[in-house]
Amino acid sequence: MDIRGYLAGEIHSNWRSEIIEGCSSVHLPISFMSPVLDHGASDGIGTDILGEETDAFWKDHKSSKVTAIRTRTLIERADVVVAKFGEDYRQWNTALDVGYAVAKEKPIVVLHPSSLGHPLKEVDAAAMAVAETPEQVVKILQYIVIKQDGIDS
Amino acid sequence: MDIRGYLAGEIHSNWRSEIIEGCSSVHLPISFMSPVLDHGASDGIGTDILGEETDAFWKDHKSSKVTAIRTRTLIERADVVVAKFGEDYRQWNTALDVGYAVAKEKPIVVLHPSSLGHPLKEVDAAAMAVAETPEQVVKILQYIVIKQDGIDS
Amino acid sequence: MDIRGYLAGEIHSNWRSEIIEGCSSVHLPISFMSPVLDHGASDGIGTDILGEETDAFWKDHKSSKVTAIRTRTLIERADVVVAKFGEDYRQWNTALDVGYAVAKEKPIVVLHPSSLGHPLKEVDAAAMAVAETPEQVVKILQYIVIKQDGIDS
Amino acid sequence: MDIRGYLAGEIHSNWRSEIIEGCSSVHLPISFMSPVLDHGASDGIGTDILGEETDAFWKDHKSSKVTAIRTRTLIERADVVVAKFGEDYRQWNTALDVGYAVAKEKPIVVLHPSSLGHPLKEVDAAAMAVAETPEQVVKILQYIVIKQDGIDS
Amino acid sequence: MDIRGYLAGEIHSNWRSEIIEGCSSVHLPISFMSPVLDHGASDGIGTDILGEETDAFWKDHKSSKVTAIRTRTLIERADVVVAKFGEDYRQWNTALDVGYAVAKEKPIVVLHPSSLGHPLKEVDAAAMAVAETPEQVVKILQYIVIKQDGIDS
Amino acid sequence: MDIRGYLAGEIHSNWRSEIIEGCSSVHLPISFMSPVLDHGASDGIGTDILGEETDAFWKDHKSSKVTAIRTRTLIERADVVVAKFGEDYRQWNTALDVGYAVAKEKPIVVLHPSSLGHPLKEVDAAAMAVAETPEQVVKILQYIVIKQDGIDS
Amino acid sequence: MDIRGYLAGEIHSNWRSEIIEGCSSVHLPISFMSPVLDHGASDGIGTDILGEETDAFWKDHKSSKVTAIRTRTLIERADVVVAKFGEDYRQWNTALDVGYAVAKEKPIVVLHPSSLGHPLKEVDAAAMAVAETPEQVVKILQYIVIKQDGIDS
Amino acid sequence: MDIRGYLAGEIHSNWRSEIIEGCSSVHLPISFMSPVLDHGASDGIGTDILGEETDAFWKDHKSSKVTAIRTRTLIERADVVVAKFGEDYRQWNTALDVGYAVAKEKPIVVLHPSSLGHPLKEVDAAAMAVAETPEQVVKILQYIVIKQDGIDS
Repeated sequence: MDIRGYLAGEIHSNWRSEIIEGCSSVHLPISFMSPVLDHGASDGIGTDILGEETDAFWKDHKSSKVTAIRTRTLIERADVVVAKFGEDYRQWNTALDVGYAVAKEKPIVVLHPSSLGHPLKEVDAAAMAVAETPEQVVKILQYIVIKQDGIDS
Repeated sequence: MDIRGYLAGEIHSNWRSEIIEGCSSVHLPISFMSPVLDHGASDGIGTDILGEETDAFWKDHKSSKVTAIRTRTLIERADVVVAKFGEDYRQWNTALDVGYAVAKEKPIVVLHPSSLGHPLKEVDAAAMAVAETPEQVVKILQYIVIKQDGIDS
Repeated sequence: MDIRGYLAGEIHSNWRSEIIEGCSSVHLPISFMSPVLDHGASDGIGTDILGEETDAFWKDHKSSKVTAIRTRTLIERADVVVAKFGEDYRQWNTALDVGYAVAKEKPIVVLHPSSLGHPLKEVDAAAMAVAETPEQVVKILQYIVIKQDGIDS
Repeated sequence: MDIRGYLAGEIHSNWRSEIIEGCSSVHLPISFMSPVLDHGASDGIGTDILGEETDAFWKDHKSSKVTAIRTRTLIERADVVVAKFGEDYRQWNTALDVGYAVAKEKPIVVLHPSSLGHPLKEVDAAAMAVAETPEQVVKILQYIVIKQDGIDS
Repeated sequence: MDIRGYLAGEIHSNWRSEIIEGCSSVHLPISFMSPVLDHGASDGIGTDILGEETDAFWKDHKSSKVTAIRTRTLIERADVVVAKFGEDYRQWNTALDVGYAVAKEKPIVVLHPSSLGHPLKEVDAAAMAVAETPEQVVKILQYIVIKQDGIDS
Repeated sequence: MDIRGYLAGEIHSNWRSEIIEGCSSVHLPISFMSPVLDHGASDGIGTDILGEETDAFWKDHKSSKVTAIRTRTLIERADVVVAKFGEDYRQWNTALDVGYAVAKEKPIVVLHPSSLGHPLKEVDAAAMAVAETPEQVVKILQYIVIKQDGIDS
Repeated sequence: MDIRGYLAGEIHSNWRSEIIEGCSSVHLPISFMSPVLDHGASDGIGTDILGEETDAFWKDHKSSKVTAIRTRTLIERADVVVAKFGEDYRQWNTALDVGYAVAKEKPIVVLHPSSLGHPLKEVDAAAMAVAETPEQVVKILQYIVIKQDGIDS
Repeated sequence: MDIRGYLAGEIHSNWRSEIIEGCSSVHLPISFMSPVLDHGASDGIGTDILGEETDAFWKDHKSSKVTAIRTRTLIERADVVVAKFGEDYRQWNTALDVGYAVAKEKPIVVLHPSSLGHPLKEVDAAAMAVAETPEQVVKILQYIVIKQDGIDS
């Protein structure tokens, strides 16, 4: 079974590459998708393409809409969504993505330090697994795609 | 047309009563639903009913699951979801609710101070209106239910 | 059987009241819903409530979004959508509403002068009936709700 | 990520080939679908295949139904719908397609001269991006499929 | 529990009134819906309202489309669909309604003489019950709405 | 908020009346639905109505199909499903109902003695709450319908 | 664009091979699916595999259920459903398949002699095209998959 | 036609390999999926990856949630679900999977000794076929994918 994982959330740490390399090192048949990780490019994409705005609200609005085309298309295609939360940002967009994915019946794996357990309790309750390290996520993904003798997937 | 509004988000200010009273004062045919607003009751509801937990994670988990029965049932019933964000908390649960409601094709009205425009840009982009005051929300709801001569709704 | 009809389209003629009065005069159990028919109010609703815009595009955008809350809520509730097209305006919003309603599996009755048959051919092909007069629409609605002896609806 | 774009709307200008060539020149993994662009063939397809009609309405009806098989099948398959509006025609079919696609939760990119902003305001409000040139559409599509180091899509 | 039953099929015998009276005599909280049972009215409804056609195909087409507004609206509202087949007509429309209702996850009760078991085998296999008499249908409906002590429905 | 609860499972103990009376004693706006609780009537309903079968399999089949009309109709109407498991029977039908309800996005409350935790672990994992006593279920339902000052539900 | 067509209906004439060969001769990228065409095999498949029945009803029931696994799986996969009706059989199963496919939003092409127009009027009204010959069906399919210069599909 | 079968249920007998080898020996284009069959691995997967629990309930909960990611993903991908029940275990999870799959409109083939007919009657009634041996399941699958002369599937 080939599956597709969408990696939502935190962009200033290397959790994505740890998961991707971890899966690659044990040859899991998983492909990964993510939002655009270049923060500046993402923030300005709307006005860069469609013309400047004097009002910051509409600049953000244009960019977020273009970004949403990508985000929703990828979530729709995902078999599983991994969402990483950290201490440093409000990451309302990540929680938004999780809520969207839950309603689309995508299984969610949440990744965050245990210190965030209380403020993330509703997000965790909507998830199928709550991990603290990328290694744990790799093991969960590995379990999902275990190949057994004589069975295709 | 009678409509139902779900009021998600911030519980330490009186924005809900301002909207409800504002709608009531102009006799709008709108009923309002909300999460349980007593923070302590909500946080402990799982263990209060179903037995104590030694691990804080499972205490939160139990409460969040019971809370989710209420939240999702109410969002399903809502015609419109109003979500209030403020400066003081991370409110990942509110963004989760918005994402869930968007995927369920519920129209969203977001209410927050303009200072939060940038971190909430993806939430705002998923909404049909972004308001800064409860009065604006009342006027939007009023527009939705305008009764016109000779037409039922 | 009580049914709900949504009356989309042209706002500068009195076709809505002809249908409503026609149904009323034969005591049909039908309630009618419509967009806000005061063109000025509708055009400016976004900025009237949520603050002015210097750019006409964003003024229109704000208003159209608020309007869409009403429109989609009403189409969701409708059992049948009647859409009136005329010679005078481009009425892309009406065709948009029809497309939306078709995808939501709402039966459509289109009302337009026969002279518009060719440019409206795809809209007509998506409809269950194509009428030229409000009287015909009344008769179609009457047929849908015919009460027969000994049967509830 | 390979995506599929459906190019709806205006058939008398070369906007489609500009988008397709623009995407091709930067090697985007996007395939494009469109309605049949030969206007005469499309208009007469129903009667050409299924037999003549004396009444123009039924001639149009037959053709529009056959066309709709193609249109809806392609919209269902599309990841993104680009809809081009121009000054010259009423293009109710294009707005119909947009409404249909919106209800099917397809992201929409609208392409039109700024002069059409007001009459298209509801269509624009239903879209994720509003572009004025094919080049802008190419850049939006490019953003959606950006390939990042170490990530599959 | 109040339920709604849609009575599809054969119109030249009195099976509908037998079911309705049977349910009424034991005070079941069931309301019944049906197609228009006046065959002539139904056959000509399209052209009666929307204008004559020279071609019998289009006459039938217009009527069937108007009829379908009623049929689909009622099937959508039904909790259970009862479909009666007899020896005398081809009743392709009844089988069409059953197929439509099955895909909409409506439970089907089929009513036909046992002699029709073989040609109706696929219809029967799509049903939850196959009855031979209206009395049996009444008893099935009675079972569905049995009121038990201390339970609401 | 009025809600509807479906009470699935065990029929040889009085857990249903304990929940219903518990809710009634604190005036909760909840109505309850259940399968037919008379075991003999339920087992023979198919052949009692539709004629005897010599083969036990088809006798069971007929009864289970008629029963399923009731069960699925009630689950569709439920806002919350409570499922009771006990030591004494295999209750595959109850687990079937839970699986069906989960896929229909109904929140599940499971009720069983803690001794059954391991064999019911997948059922529990699909639930929003796992209770051991009817009193706990009453309290959960009470939380879901808490009426707060100035808010409708 | 590669599409999949499901060929439902009449099995005693060679209309399927005419369509398949017609499409093949002009190299259309269409694959075809059909029910099992060996009438005897289909009729007895249930009891052949799962054991004899003394009652003809259950023999038919078993076979029809096994057949339905195939039929529904193929209809789900189809992009377009072609349904052939003839004078000789009641073909309630074919009308059942059409109703099912319509509710699943599959476009339908009906194929029948014009003499059957009246009894099939509701089926025809649910279709996107009504053909009299396999050649016409080939041309419709050809139109759906027309490949245009510079466009992928 | 390539199809995918999900093999749910009993893990202590070799029914899966009998079906897989049976299909393989007649070259059926079917791939098979299954839950993880190593009982110990499955039971402890949650705590093995995500950390120990002192409470058996939460140990089971963690494992069942991780398992459910796999189970639901595979059921979603399946064209047909085969569910095996035996005398020895309560197998509530298997009945849960069947209920879930039924609501997702997956055709079910149930496999069990005839002695279990009565307790499994609701499960059997939800299925398209009830088999007693793996050989029968192979024959059913073979029928579903029969390749006929001149037809693709």
